[in-house]
Amino acid sequence: MAFAISAGAVIRPIRSSIDESFALPPMERFEELINERTRGILICNPNNPTGYLYTRAEMNRIRDLVKKHNLYLFSDEVYREFIYTGSPYISACHLEGIEDNVVLIDSVSKRYSECGIRIGALITKNKAVRQAVMKFCQARLSPPLLGQVIAEASIDAPRSYTINTYEQYIERRNCLVDELNKLPGVYSPIPMGAFYTVARLPIDDSDKFCEWCLTDFNYEGETIMMAPASGFYSEEGYGKNEVRIAYAIDKADLKRAIFLLGKALEQYPGRVNP
Amino acid sequence: MAFAISAGAVIRPIRSSIDESFALPPMERFEELINERTRGILICNPNNPTGYLYTRAEMNRIRDLVKKHNLYLFSDEVYREFIYTGSPYISACHLEGIEDNVVLIDSVSKRYSECGIRIGALITKNKAVRQAVMKFCQARLSPPLLGQVIAEASIDAPRSYTINTYEQYIERRNCLVDELNKLPGVYSPIPMGAFYTVARLPIDDSDKFCEWCLTDFNYEGETIMMAPASGFYSEEGYGKNEVRIAYAIDKADLKRAIFLLGKALEQYPGRVNP
Repeated sequence: MAFAISAGAVIRPIRSSIDESFALPPMERFEELINERTRGILICNPNNPTGYLYTRAEMNRIRDLVKKHNLYLFSDEVYREFIYTGSPYISACHLEGIEDNVVLIDSVSKRYSECGIRIGALITKNKAVRQAVMKFCQARLSPPLLGQVIAEASIDAPRSYTINTYEQYIERRNCLVDELNKLPGVYSPIPMGAFYTVARLPIDDSDKFCEWCLTDFNYEGETIMMAPASGFYSEEGYGKNEVRIAYAIDKADLKRAIFLLGKALEQYPGRVNP
Repeated sequence: MAFAISAGAVIRPIRSSIDESFALPPMERFEELINERTRGILICNPNNPTGYLYTRAEMNRIRDLVKKHNLYLFSDEVYREFIYTGSPYISACHLEGIEDNVVLIDSVSKRYSECGIRIGALITKNKAVRQAVMKFCQARLSPPLLGQVIAEASIDAPRSYTINTYEQYIERRNCLVDELNKLPGVYSPIPMGAFYTVARLPIDDSDKFCEWCLTDFNYEGETIMMAPASGFYSEEGYGKNEVRIAYAIDKADLKRAIFLLGKALEQYPGRVNP
C-alpha cells in the first residue's frame, strides 16, 4: 500500500467483515467505487490476514466485474499451496475470458518457509505489462543472489515435503480454531487457507492489548505476540477487537500460546464483556 | 537514475572527460545548472565507472557549492576501501559546515566481494532524512535475511583480509593500466580508486565492439566482456570509443584478458585510426 500510494495510485479499500467470515463483499460495493480512473482490483487469495479462500462463485463474480470494466486483476496467491477445504483452488489464472487482465503474484517465502528470502514472481500473459516490468527488473539489476540460489534449489523439493508441511498446517489450524473458540468471549472463523486467522477478542483496543502482552503481561515467564487487526483495515476504527494470529509454529507451542492468550485475557485491564 | 526519474526527480548530468582523467568539472558547470528547484548533488567517490578519486581541493569546492545553495550532497562511497594513491581519503562526511546536508551511501557488496547480497547503509546526521527513510524501511519490511546474516559476519573480517585484498587490487590495477597503455591506439588514465577504469579504444562504436566480442570474436576459444562507456554518459553520442573494464579478477586472468583485447582490436572490422 505504501509503495502504491507513493507511486501516485489511489487505493479504494473494500471492507470485509468477521461476521461474514471475511467473504467477498457484494459486487455492488465494488461498482460504487469504480470510476473512469479505476485501473485494477487487487485481491489476496488465500487471504492474509484472514485465511479466507474465495469460492468459484466469488471468483466468477470478480471475473465478470474485471471483464465489464476492462480492469487489471492483481492476484496475490503466495499461499496457494495452503488450502484446507478439499475444494479445488480457483486461481485468477483459471478464469476464462480475462487472460490478458490477470497479473498473478507468487513467492517462495511461504511455500518453503523462506521468510525474507525476497524471491518471487510476477506472472501474466499481458505482453505490455511484461515489457514494463522488464524495465523495472533492469533498473533493479537483480534480486538477492543468495535468495536466487536457494529458491532455485527449493523448487526441486520432493513432493513429500509439500505433503508433510500441508498435514502439519491442517493439524495446527484445527488446534488453533478449536482452542480459540473455547476461550470465553473469543471467536474465530475457520480459516480455509494460508496460515493465519483473524479472531475477535473481548478487548477494548487490539493495539493496546498486543502491546500490553509484550510489555506488561507474562505467565510463568512467557507471553504471546500477535498483530493488531486494526493495521489491516484501511479505515480508522475497524478491527479494534480483532487480532491476526499466525499458526506457523509447532502445534505444542501453538496450544501453549492459546492457553497464554486465555490467561492474558483474564488479566487484561481493558477487557470488555462482549 | 531510473528510480530517481520514476520518483519524479529531474537529473541534470555534468559530464567529465577522459582527457582530464575524469576529474571534477569546473564549478561553473554546476552553477549553470542549479536553479530554485535543485535539491541535491550526487557524487560517486571513488568513482564507478572511472576509478577517479576526488581530491581534497575538489571536495572543498563541492562543500562550498552545497553550502552556498543549501543542497543535499548524496555521496556514494561504496569503494572507499579501494584507494591506491596513498593520499588521505576525503569522505563527504569529513567536510565541515555541511554536516546536515550530507547523505552517505555505503554497501558491503564491494568491500567483501559480496555482489548481489543487497545489504547497504544510508548514513546521515540529518534527522528529517532519517525519519523519512524510516518510513521506506517500514514499507519494505526488511532487506534480505540471508544478506543480513552474512553482512553482519563480514564486518568482523580480520584486518588481514582487508590488507590482502587491497594489495591484490593494487597489483591488478598496475597490471591493467600498464598492459592497456601498451596496446596501439589504447589509452587509460591511472585509476586512483575502486576497481574500474574507463579506457579509450581505437573503435567506431563501443556498443557494437562489446557485442562483437561476445558474438563474433574468439581467440583460442576465449573472449572478453566489457561495459560500453556510452551507457554511463547521460547524453547521446559520448563514450562511443570508451569502455569500462573491471579488474575484479585474478592478475593472470586480467593479463590474458588484455592480451585478448589486443587481438580483438586487431580483428575488429570497425577499428579506426585514432
